Amino acid sequence: MKVVFIGLCGHSMQAYEVLKLRTDATLCGVAPGSEHENMTESFDPAIPYFASWNEMLDKTHPDLAVSSPVFGLTGEIVIACAKRGINVFCEKPVAGTLEDLERVKAAVRSSGIRFCAMHYLRVSPAFWQGAAMVKSGAIGEVRLLNAQKSYRFGTRPDWYRDRDLFTGIIPWVGIHAIDWIYAFAGKKFLSVNASTAGIPERTALCRFDLEDGVAASISLDYFRPEIAPSHDDDRIRCVGTDGILEVRDGKIHLMNGDGVQTIDPDPAPELLSCFLDRNDLLSPDDIFYLTRVALLARESADTQSTVSIEN
Amino acid sequence: MKVVFIGLCGHSMQAYEVLKLRTDATLCGVAPGSEHENMTESFDPAIPYFASWNEMLDKTHPDLAVSSPVFGLTGEIVIACAKRGINVFCEKPVAGTLEDLERVKAAVRSSGIRFCAMHYLRVSPAFWQGAAMVKSGAIGEVRLLNAQKSYRFGTRPDWYRDRDLFTGIIPWVGIHAIDWIYAFAGKKFLSVNASTAGIPERTALCRFDLEDGVAASISLDYFRPEIAPSHDDDRIRCVGTDGILEVRDGKIHLMNGDGVQTIDPDPAPELLSCFLDRNDLLSPDDIFYLTRVALLARESADTQSTVSIEN
Repeated sequence: MKVVFIGLCGHSMQAYEVLKLRTDATLCGVAPGSEHENMTESFDPAIPYFASWNEMLDKTHPDLAVSSPVFGLTGEIVIACAKRGINVFCEKPVAGTLEDLERVKAAVRSSGIRFCAMHYLRVSPAFWQGAAMVKSGAIGEVRLLNAQKSYRFGTRPDWYRDRDLFTGIIPWVGIHAIDWIYAFAGKKFLSVNASTAGIPERTALCRFDLEDGVAASISLDYFRPEIAPSHDDDRIRCVGTDGILEVRDGKIHLMNGDGVQTIDPDPAPELLSCFLDRNDLLSPDDIFYLTRVALLARESADTQSTVSIEN
Repeated sequence: MKVVFIGLCGHSMQAYEVLKLRTDATLCGVAPGSEHENMTESFDPAIPYFASWNEMLDKTHPDLAVSSPVFGLTGEIVIACAKRGINVFCEKPVAGTLEDLERVKAAVRSSGIRFCAMHYLRVSPAFWQGAAMVKSGAIGEVRLLNAQKSYRFGTRPDWYRDRDLFTGIIPWVGIHAIDWIYAFAGKKFLSVNASTAGIPERTALCRFDLEDGVAASISLDYFRPEIAPSHDDDRIRCVGTDGILEVRDGKIHLMNGDGVQTIDPDPAPELLSCFLDRNDLLSPDDIFYLTRVALLARESADTQSTVSIEN
């Protein structure tokens, strides 16, 4: 299996660490996704470097492209790979606009390539196990969910100010919280009402109506202080008819008829390894759906109106 | 100072405990607010009992009425007291509809009575001190707030199913979270988008836009398990440009340039005692405003639309 890397934003290093250890993978090229990315210091210098990812794809004929360019460029790269029949493991969001999402969807479906996106937080251990517990009935029927992503802002490149390149705090950060809500509630989204603030966007707040009267919120911010004990403060609180389950500080906090417990989660499966072993943890349809919900939430904030989500 | 008690819902016993100890207060009557209330077991039997609060007001000529009837009846009682020039300390919401709120407002203002409502959670110690810390700049400029009220449902009277009597989960429970947001952010509300679910209402989720691009959410539920270590799980998380302050489990959790701290709050002032001593912690205008915001949030949920809040 010949593998190339395009871009160095987001979770590409996490994928690189997995692929370095795979005996069935040959790393045969790295290339930046755009002029904003400097690839030279992060990869083994023995891997051939290409200034153009297009040229790299043509010359190396890879089986798999790991794509994590400046966020807004993902869709174009996925389409280029799909046209060449190259399987893709790419960053989320898989498209920066609803129009591009339709193009990506069509290209992936018509090509028959294998496709997965880096929804790594689906398999963050406490979230993975928490979702499984909720699905198995630990809190009865889900009624209400509150998810949170809080990050340090630190120093970010200038292109975070550019919607076309950054995509926005909801598609880039919020999509993880949307993914958790989808995984925990097991319901479709019906509508969203959202706001964002800041240039670059530093906060967002979305309220979703889901099927069966379930409601969900996501709260996003890039204001976590530098002094904080971790880069991120990822949470979900899930209220059910028979109990409440929360993920906070990497642990599962469960209250139900059996009592009050704090649970250290077991290790979770690794997203890319599962994809390579044909055990997909998210289907392409799931990924397209989460992307669409995130882009519609951004549209709600942009237009200051509630946006319906068709299913 | 002659004091009467009308009704026995909500926080009336908290007010009773304060008044029993006041040497300047004579407790000269108790009466139910409606046929749903049984007053006989909770008050000192030496205090005269009246079957009709109207009759009690006419016969005792009190200086102060403490009113906590079935929630939807508060407005009518406030108006009756105001017409007689009787000062009022009543439950929130001070009116169950926007029309009643206008009538209450006019009656209170034209009568010149002293007026306060039982926004007791404003002075819950961690919230009181947390709001003061935020106001004094502990986290810079506020950008985002998430408040939560989670209660056990336990056994509730049938009238919780009746909108006219219960008023709804947002006016009854959510108004406390709205109060916190108002106190912490120090900003006016511009619009609200909300949903509720259940009969009786068991959950609600509201998203508010505030002045200056500040966003806020309140999450309400009556699904706290019986086994939970406390009746309620009150929280607020307040994200600022220079730090994050949370109230959770009765403590203040602060992260800012000075470090990460957990603070046990100092005792807070007592709402009714301050009112009696003419040191009002909330003005009538504040109370009318919070009531209007809560009723508009309920309207948003009822009409499934975003509702503007004029200031």
